[in-house]
Amino acid sequence: MAMVCLSDFEAYAKKYLPKIAWDYFAAGADDCNTRDENVLAYKRIHFRPRILRDVSIMDIRTKILGTEISFPVGIAPTGFHQLAWPDGEKSTARAAKAMNTCYIASTYSTCTLEEISAAAPGGLRWFQLYIHRNRAASQKLVQRAEALGFQGLVLTADVPYTGKRRNDIRNGFCLPPHMKVKNLERDFEVYDRSEYGLPPNSLDPSITWNDIYWLRSLTHLPIIIKGILTKEDAELAVRHGVQGIIVSNHGGRQLDEGPATVDALVEVVEAVQGRVEVYLDGGIRKGSDVLKALALGAKCVFIGRPALWGLAYKGEEGLQDVLRLLQDEFRLSMALAGCASVPEIGRHLVQFSKL
Amino acid sequence: MAMVCLSDFEAYAKKYLPKIAWDYFAAGADDCNTRDENVLAYKRIHFRPRILRDVSIMDIRTKILGTEISFPVGIAPTGFHQLAWPDGEKSTARAAKAMNTCYIASTYSTCTLEEISAAAPGGLRWFQLYIHRNRAASQKLVQRAEALGFQGLVLTADVPYTGKRRNDIRNGFCLPPHMKVKNLERDFEVYDRSEYGLPPNSLDPSITWNDIYWLRSLTHLPIIIKGILTKEDAELAVRHGVQGIIVSNHGGRQLDEGPATVDALVEVVEAVQGRVEVYLDGGIRKGSDVLKALALGAKCVFIGRPALWGLAYKGEEGLQDVLRLLQDEFRLSMALAGCASVPEIGRHLVQFSKL
Amino acid sequence: MAMVCLSDFEAYAKKYLPKIAWDYFAAGADDCNTRDENVLAYKRIHFRPRILRDVSIMDIRTKILGTEISFPVGIAPTGFHQLAWPDGEKSTARAAKAMNTCYIASTYSTCTLEEISAAAPGGLRWFQLYIHRNRAASQKLVQRAEALGFQGLVLTADVPYTGKRRNDIRNGFCLPPHMKVKNLERDFEVYDRSEYGLPPNSLDPSITWNDIYWLRSLTHLPIIIKGILTKEDAELAVRHGVQGIIVSNHGGRQLDEGPATVDALVEVVEAVQGRVEVYLDGGIRKGSDVLKALALGAKCVFIGRPALWGLAYKGEEGLQDVLRLLQDEFRLSMALAGCASVPEIGRHLVQFSKL
Amino acid sequence: MAMVCLSDFEAYAKKYLPKIAWDYFAAGADDCNTRDENVLAYKRIHFRPRILRDVSIMDIRTKILGTEISFPVGIAPTGFHQLAWPDGEKSTARAAKAMNTCYIASTYSTCTLEEISAAAPGGLRWFQLYIHRNRAASQKLVQRAEALGFQGLVLTADVPYTGKRRNDIRNGFCLPPHMKVKNLERDFEVYDRSEYGLPPNSLDPSITWNDIYWLRSLTHLPIIIKGILTKEDAELAVRHGVQGIIVSNHGGRQLDEGPATVDALVEVVEAVQGRVEVYLDGGIRKGSDVLKALALGAKCVFIGRPALWGLAYKGEEGLQDVLRLLQDEFRLSMALAGCASVPEIGRHLVQFSKL
Repeated sequence: MAMVCLSDFEAYAKKYLPKIAWDYFAAGADDCNTRDENVLAYKRIHFRPRILRDVSIMDIRTKILGTEISFPVGIAPTGFHQLAWPDGEKSTARAAKAMNTCYIASTYSTCTLEEISAAAPGGLRWFQLYIHRNRAASQKLVQRAEALGFQGLVLTADVPYTGKRRNDIRNGFCLPPHMKVKNLERDFEVYDRSEYGLPPNSLDPSITWNDIYWLRSLTHLPIIIKGILTKEDAELAVRHGVQGIIVSNHGGRQLDEGPATVDALVEVVEAVQGRVEVYLDGGIRKGSDVLKALALGAKCVFIGRPALWGLAYKGEEGLQDVLRLLQDEFRLSMALAGCASVPEIGRHLVQFSKL
Repeated sequence: MAMVCLSDFEAYAKKYLPKIAWDYFAAGADDCNTRDENVLAYKRIHFRPRILRDVSIMDIRTKILGTEISFPVGIAPTGFHQLAWPDGEKSTARAAKAMNTCYIASTYSTCTLEEISAAAPGGLRWFQLYIHRNRAASQKLVQRAEALGFQGLVLTADVPYTGKRRNDIRNGFCLPPHMKVKNLERDFEVYDRSEYGLPPNSLDPSITWNDIYWLRSLTHLPIIIKGILTKEDAELAVRHGVQGIIVSNHGGRQLDEGPATVDALVEVVEAVQGRVEVYLDGGIRKGSDVLKALALGAKCVFIGRPALWGLAYKGEEGLQDVLRLLQDEFRLSMALAGCASVPEIGRHLVQFSKL
Repeated sequence: MAMVCLSDFEAYAKKYLPKIAWDYFAAGADDCNTRDENVLAYKRIHFRPRILRDVSIMDIRTKILGTEISFPVGIAPTGFHQLAWPDGEKSTARAAKAMNTCYIASTYSTCTLEEISAAAPGGLRWFQLYIHRNRAASQKLVQRAEALGFQGLVLTADVPYTGKRRNDIRNGFCLPPHMKVKNLERDFEVYDRSEYGLPPNSLDPSITWNDIYWLRSLTHLPIIIKGILTKEDAELAVRHGVQGIIVSNHGGRQLDEGPATVDALVEVVEAVQGRVEVYLDGGIRKGSDVLKALALGAKCVFIGRPALWGLAYKGEEGLQDVLRLLQDEFRLSMALAGCASVPEIGRHLVQFSKL
Repeated sequence: MAMVCLSDFEAYAKKYLPKIAWDYFAAGADDCNTRDENVLAYKRIHFRPRILRDVSIMDIRTKILGTEISFPVGIAPTGFHQLAWPDGEKSTARAAKAMNTCYIASTYSTCTLEEISAAAPGGLRWFQLYIHRNRAASQKLVQRAEALGFQGLVLTADVPYTGKRRNDIRNGFCLPPHMKVKNLERDFEVYDRSEYGLPPNSLDPSITWNDIYWLRSLTHLPIIIKGILTKEDAELAVRHGVQGIIVSNHGGRQLDEGPATVDALVEVVEAVQGRVEVYLDGGIRKGSDVLKALALGAKCVFIGRPALWGLAYKGEEGLQDVLRLLQDEFRLSMALAGCASVPEIGRHLVQFSKL
């Protein structure tokens, strides 16, 4: 079976993963409208391709927070990689390093941060943080990540409570006995895995913008805030001194019927006015989707489910296949749109369809 | 079978109710476009969710006409609950009281107002009135309701004649012999049940705004007018001294191809300018639909068919399940949108999709 | 089988007519987009229903060119009624008279004008004219119609050549041997029925606005021009002294992908500014469609295919069923929209959906 | 089987061509959205047909670059006609000449330019050029074409690299051993047919607007540039002295999710302001599509896939069938829209649907 496009990896994962794991990765909140809109929104953005520009030498590298990556696609934080591949996040880390891009490791990894670091020394990694009611546990995590050489701290801000994912409820989803949220396993007296691998109601729903100052007090790492969908929150993020914003709706897994991320991107980029870097996750399925997001002002995008499909296909190697395919498609679409390097990509390249 | 969302209750009711009863409850006028649009219109309204707001303590209570209810969802008036569950409206009344919300009992109940009151003493109830050609009968009903402690009088204004519901015609729908429109059974010399349980053509198609004054002369109850879809009629309602407006198209059962209620809500709220409370029924299928309606200015919404599905599932208990599910979904969607209490919900929270 | 809506008649006709006849009646030009749009366009028009207006006494009568009809729906000119029912246009004439409405008899009838007149003496009828290359034949027809008491002359202006109807080509459609275009059978030396019942290329494609003056010289009948879709042609029609305009795209059988008639109606009504009466045909499937067309300025609408379905069902009686059903639906939709008589219907009653 | 519309030819070709050849011709880039949009975009353009204009004498001839053709439809450059019919481009040339229209022969023909010329002496032909890294080969081709009497040089400007066509990758598409890109077969030391019949990466991705000057230095032929989709590039084309522009997205085979060509046409025509002739290819499926493109300012359109379907059906004769069918449909749609000759076609004839 030729793996020609990301849908091939998706079909493979759907076919070979246990239903409960597939459902967990595929899940969206409620009717899954936002999950699906993340993808569909790209279809409403049309290129305005330019011709007869010298594209014989293509340079698709970019920098995020000052660090060069091979192309503007990183790995979004997603949980429980061992559900997709036995080596879990260790494979993810190796693939990201091999492809010279950024991997945002999740709090809800099934490997420890130490294992992840050891698996791919020197790779560019950021750490994704949920703030728990047990603040000490969160603080420890941040400090471990910094000590291990993680280069950014990504605060997920859209999960005061977990979204309602119907299939997970129907399936009674919980982590299999041999997997654990390893980063936190010592932080709970009774280790109850009933809600997505941790004791229920362990996240802190009281966090506010002031907690950015608390985080700042814990670490020298740049802080990136994930889950912003409005210009108002983008403005607040800048004012509270974050270094980056990830426009995200958590893959459509939290509040259903919010905006598609690529639609929200426009409003956030306009509000931010270049004061901090803006990234995006959600709905990237083709190299040309990356090009569209960059044309609308994203500095880089992150892939969630497609990375898991790659893992499910062949672990580290499969994830590299996914990244390489996106790289090739991104490079080709840039060339066909008339851009030889990332700085040539701009707003003029796209228009929103009226349909 | 897990009851995870309202569609699960719908599927259950469709499977287990007699076809003629299911068809009656499901019926819309003509092509059922408005019935379906009531639901679809919510998909075109997108949230603008806000993050990092303290939502650790959620308060979803509200007040309607000064009385507190546990959350802004009440039971819309629908007829013939015994078609869904043997105890009929008595079960409905009990469930509404148990969940501390408002039940609007229909003129076309299969239990008497007295039975309804006795089933759940002290519950918050309004009485829905059709004005009959036999005005004395209508007057008596109003006065019985007031005497029984009903706290509001809801005048249905969109049924000068009954809408054309094709399936009911095909099925030759009429009430089974053992059921009656009990509230009126002594008011007709010949009790002919051929048109929806009462003699045909018994409603008064000559009623006008002046009849509001007539109603006012009969009762001290607040008058709520149900069936308003335009700013012009909203203005007239306010000028005629009603206390509340229910934006409603009768669940799409009267004039097909009028506006979806959530679309009409915008125009009505703008016209009313806070002078009276505005409610809505039609198309509510998720907790987030409630949030959208409130963001657009509704003080409370009422559910029709979903309440019947709950009754069909397990009577009083099933209806409580439906209400509890909506309550949980509403609370979660509020939290995920960044609102900790009802007063924080506002127009800024939503935008209309251009698609 | 209950005949509850026009689709029931359509399904009956599709089931029981010979395929070649059904295909001929159903045919649209090319991809049939305009044929289908005629119907779909009504779905994008929403009512703004008004409540609490006295609709106890409903008056649905109107006048066209000064003559009262029982409700604003007439029979559009269509060819070859014997394909639907043995008595052909004689049945049509009887049904129209029985229902007290206007029947526009087609040049391409399978009964003579004399037979039509004799079948229903005193009925309100207009005569639809194609201008043939053989002008003398056309002149004779006009004068016969006037002499027989037809009260209007409808010039079809959108058939310089016959549209391309793929199924008719595939079927090799032609009139069965026992049917004829009787009104013209003596006007052609060789009676070749190869193109829709007449010698090919017999219509005159050179007719222009000046031919209105020629028609005027032949008859005292009011002239109604059928096939106008633009404001420019509406203006020309008024300037050339016609008495009425039928907004029509020939049921989508001529130029595919022009406007739906109800959409074109708006532009024509605005151009005409009440100087002549404006009618419409195409896409009427429900009583509420009639109400929408009237709200947008049509004085009356005409039904084509639905009349044929009625004929196919039970001849004269079936067509009466169709008309009666539309009458009941029209009356009910008027009442539910808050109008007790035709003059109360106005532009305020509808809005165009943005979708 | 009656061949009534182009879809009939498409169905025939799909049924009888080898899958690999069908897939190659049908292929679009990535998700094929642009390929499909080329067709769908016409559905959103509605006619404003005019009536009562003398259309008894129809003249559908036009001129392109001063040369008369029988109607404004030519043959777009497509590769590998032997995949559709044994005689390949020789049949194409003969059919185009027989129908008195223009054939743009592709660099990637499976017959030589000399064979094509000899097959239909005196026919109007333009030559389509890809600029290869081997510039000498391209220069030779241009000069051969000019010497052979080709009357225009069409530079394809949207293929710095070949688009990603998934099915071709899955099929491992390459030319069968008995076919060759004959025009170039002596220009490559090792004749490797692995990428669409030529050595991979043989096209020159460094070409820019300055290469127009280089082409100009090689030939006296008018230069037409193919692949323009924006006003900016249209302006550049005019400034660089080309004689014509073909609005094209390469049949949706290069960059997916650019504009449909008929949508881009509007912007290009407006920018060009009549300074050079503007043509279009992509999505033409009916005679009325041609009329729409002309109404929006195209001087002529070119058909790609439909020509191949005609070849696949019956070679030269089948292609003539296709052209004749389009001619008849174009003539009829002109007449039904009220135009008797090409100069009467104008912008007033169409409007864009809001849907």
